[in-house]
Amino acid sequence: MRAKDLAEAYPMARLDDDAFTAVTTMASQRRPGVVVLDEGSRPLHVLPGTQVLRFLVPGYVQDDPSLARVFDETDAIEACVSKLSGHRVGDLLPPKDKRTEPALVDGDATVLECAALMVRLRSPLLVVADGDVIHGVITASHLLDQLLTQPNS
Amino acid sequence: MRAKDLAEAYPMARLDDDAFTAVTTMASQRRPGVVVLDEGSRPLHVLPGTQVLRFLVPGYVQDDPSLARVFDETDAIEACVSKLSGHRVGDLLPPKDKRTEPALVDGDATVLECAALMVRLRSPLLVVADGDVIHGVITASHLLDQLLTQPNS
Repeated sequence: MRAKDLAEAYPMARLDDDAFTAVTTMASQRRPGVVVLDEGSRPLHVLPGTQVLRFLVPGYVQDDPSLARVFDETDAIEACVSKLSGHRVGDLLPPKDKRTEPALVDGDATVLECAALMVRLRSPLLVVADGDVIHGVITASHLLDQLLTQPNS
Repeated sequence: MRAKDLAEAYPMARLDDDAFTAVTTMASQRRPGVVVLDEGSRPLHVLPGTQVLRFLVPGYVQDDPSLARVFDETDAIEACVSKLSGHRVGDLLPPKDKRTEPALVDGDATVLECAALMVRLRSPLLVVADGDVIHGVITASHLLDQLLTQPNS
């Protein structure tokens, strides 16, 4: 079993894709993030859900979350939806100096090699790619499932 | 909609639960971690899958992941399984000074309040609890789903 055999589909988006579509895809699939690709289709950044929330939630509520209780929920939801509309995925990214490159592994990496890389890079997600061919993504829980339960299944 | 209405079941384990069972539950549900409860059933730590991998993968392979390619895969998997057997969940935790307490929110918190807390605490997961009653967990993607897609559904 090699990384390319384990790789699974994951939400991916380009910098100029519509932000609302990318985020709702991630949210409806209950994935923790979106892999953002640069103009050359290379993985640039894994945009986490918390970074999207940072974009959506008003700054003064982030500073004092108890203020959130004074908002009417329908108004708050409408404000969040309208904040995303018209934006591109690139608008949601953190500043360049705060972006971390996605952890990459080539398609022929073994299960143990993937596990070692995740530990070394402290990343619960690896993007499996050979050059500009992206096979998909491997998560820590998928690797653990492979390591611990496959022999018994 | 309040936090306790949004809270979902999530893998939870006590410090003295069997490690193999807790990890395989997390892995088979493809969850990124396990909420670990202390002796008083209070949330103590969210054990991430990468920390479990750190426990399983031999140190010299963590230092040089390319070494992993020399291992026979069946042997590597057997070594990982045997490393967990006989251990308790508490054995998998990082040292006390490297543990972070789970982000907690009470059951009456609003959706926007949960979102603000996630941003403030940089946590993609909130444990929803009132005293020692744990309602479950809210993830960032679940919150985004609630904020962005519910009005349209």
